[in-house]
Amino acid sequence: MLDLCLLGTGGMMPLTYRRLTSLMTRFNGKGLIIDCGEGTQVGVRAQGWSFHDIDIICFTHYHADHISGLPGLLLSMGNADRREPVTVIGPKGLERTVNALRVIAPELPFELKFIELSEPVQELKLLGYRITAFKVNHSIACYGYSINIDRAGRFDPEKAKLNNVPMRVWSKLQKNPTAELDGVTYTCDMILGPERKGIKVTYCTDTRPVKIISEMAAGSDLFICEGMYGEADKDDKAVEHKHMTFYEAARIAAAADPMPAQMWLTHYSPSLVNPAEFVGRIKKIFPNVIAAKDLRSVTLKFEEDEKE
Amino acid sequence: MLDLCLLGTGGMMPLTYRRLTSLMTRFNGKGLIIDCGEGTQVGVRAQGWSFHDIDIICFTHYHADHISGLPGLLLSMGNADRREPVTVIGPKGLERTVNALRVIAPELPFELKFIELSEPVQELKLLGYRITAFKVNHSIACYGYSINIDRAGRFDPEKAKLNNVPMRVWSKLQKNPTAELDGVTYTCDMILGPERKGIKVTYCTDTRPVKIISEMAAGSDLFICEGMYGEADKDDKAVEHKHMTFYEAARIAAAADPMPAQMWLTHYSPSLVNPAEFVGRIKKIFPNVIAAKDLRSVTLKFEEDEKE
Repeated sequence: MLDLCLLGTGGMMPLTYRRLTSLMTRFNGKGLIIDCGEGTQVGVRAQGWSFHDIDIICFTHYHADHISGLPGLLLSMGNADRREPVTVIGPKGLERTVNALRVIAPELPFELKFIELSEPVQELKLLGYRITAFKVNHSIACYGYSINIDRAGRFDPEKAKLNNVPMRVWSKLQKNPTAELDGVTYTCDMILGPERKGIKVTYCTDTRPVKIISEMAAGSDLFICEGMYGEADKDDKAVEHKHMTFYEAARIAAAADPMPAQMWLTHYSPSLVNPAEFVGRIKKIFPNVIAAKDLRSVTLKFEEDEKE
Repeated sequence: MLDLCLLGTGGMMPLTYRRLTSLMTRFNGKGLIIDCGEGTQVGVRAQGWSFHDIDIICFTHYHADHISGLPGLLLSMGNADRREPVTVIGPKGLERTVNALRVIAPELPFELKFIELSEPVQELKLLGYRITAFKVNHSIACYGYSINIDRAGRFDPEKAKLNNVPMRVWSKLQKNPTAELDGVTYTCDMILGPERKGIKVTYCTDTRPVKIISEMAAGSDLFICEGMYGEADKDDKAVEHKHMTFYEAARIAAAADPMPAQMWLTHYSPSLVNPAEFVGRIKKIFPNVIAAKDLRSVTLKFEEDEKE
């Protein structure tokens, strides 16, 4: 299962009642954060999750409201006795931007490993997460992310026997893609049933609508999408600032095939005091949508666990 | 009169219930901020003061909890249509540190003017403020600040006549240090009575106790001082981290001659959940002390205005 929390839901600037947009997930003891504007570390505290277990930090882009909280976050992770390396992922300029900000956090008790995105669509496998970064369309280079938790097939002893896999490697093959015995290599698909449905969350802020977002949102258990403006008459502003209205976000979700199970809106303009007010009118386009508030959380379970 | 607000009172890291330590003042439409850690801009919003009118930003030092909010603050000032230059004051390394952080706020609609402190005690006159920076003793170069609002003497027509100052320059001399008429230079002291008591606020965080702090706190209407640790048994920690206990702060105030009218403690350790609990025991050393909370504010008036 995947724990997930929107630590903040604001765009541009932190307000007294709304932190800047940031997502945190936990899977199997491994934590991942997408974006950390000023105040994200307060969101982590408010949610009561561990700074120590933040293993991956992804950036959509380097506008201040998405990264200004990084020095403080890293220092709080150090104060929480983090010692293991932390992987930082983001568009071109990653290392330069992070290192510039580290002028006020020069000494950390852990190493930063940088993965700079270079492809329009790029897949990374890290600590049980399969992360697909996809380029969107903002005023500077910006990526969305799909977070996938894949789930192998169930162990099938009949299949294992049929494939002449010796019992001595069954256990190893359930935890590893391959196993060797007496010079023969066996693969896990020889003992496992068909791959089971995993968990998929797609996250996308700071962009105009582009086709890739629907493609990536397809089949997601949860699609988290920016809704900078709630009002229909903000179309021009959305175009000018390269953001989206609630309507555009809803159309993206509706165009996905299969559609995501649900959508949370986030990254509201400071002028949008009560986003919930504007959600009703987009339900005709995509019904299962909410205007998320800070600390909106969910635990997404694997399909079969849910039935149990 | 001088409006003053402690936007936050925490040290090290922002908490859900306490922002990082920062002071904001307003005098005659001119705003001044000392330190801006992560979240200071939220404090400005919570207090309802203007981002547009922030004219001076002083830094005590460049540890993250005192400067990490700068990029966001500058961007919010830009969003508030600030166009006039902003003066930034701080210890050695000022321009390098600020420019590194501006990697995420590269375009501002106003100029930054840097004043890098180089003397152990350095006086600056800016926009009606007389600012005295004084070096203290922390793990890196760190300054305290006295903010003085000086007040000229009252206009004395008898004295003006006695000094043969023509009536045609009286008005000009009440607003300027000198005035010329027919090739003769007149000075304001020729028409003004003795200088009247102004307003003095002294602010000091992140230091061990040093003599200069008492010297600068002397005669202050308000002395704002760090109290990192409330408990008496934290002496060793205070020495190790180069901070102060409530007791040490109180002894500094008591040693000032004349003593400051009142003291506010600030910059509490995250471990100090309820600072007010520890204030009673230091009142024997310095009676007029409070453990300030976020948004503690006051309007300090000139002595004679108070009587009116």
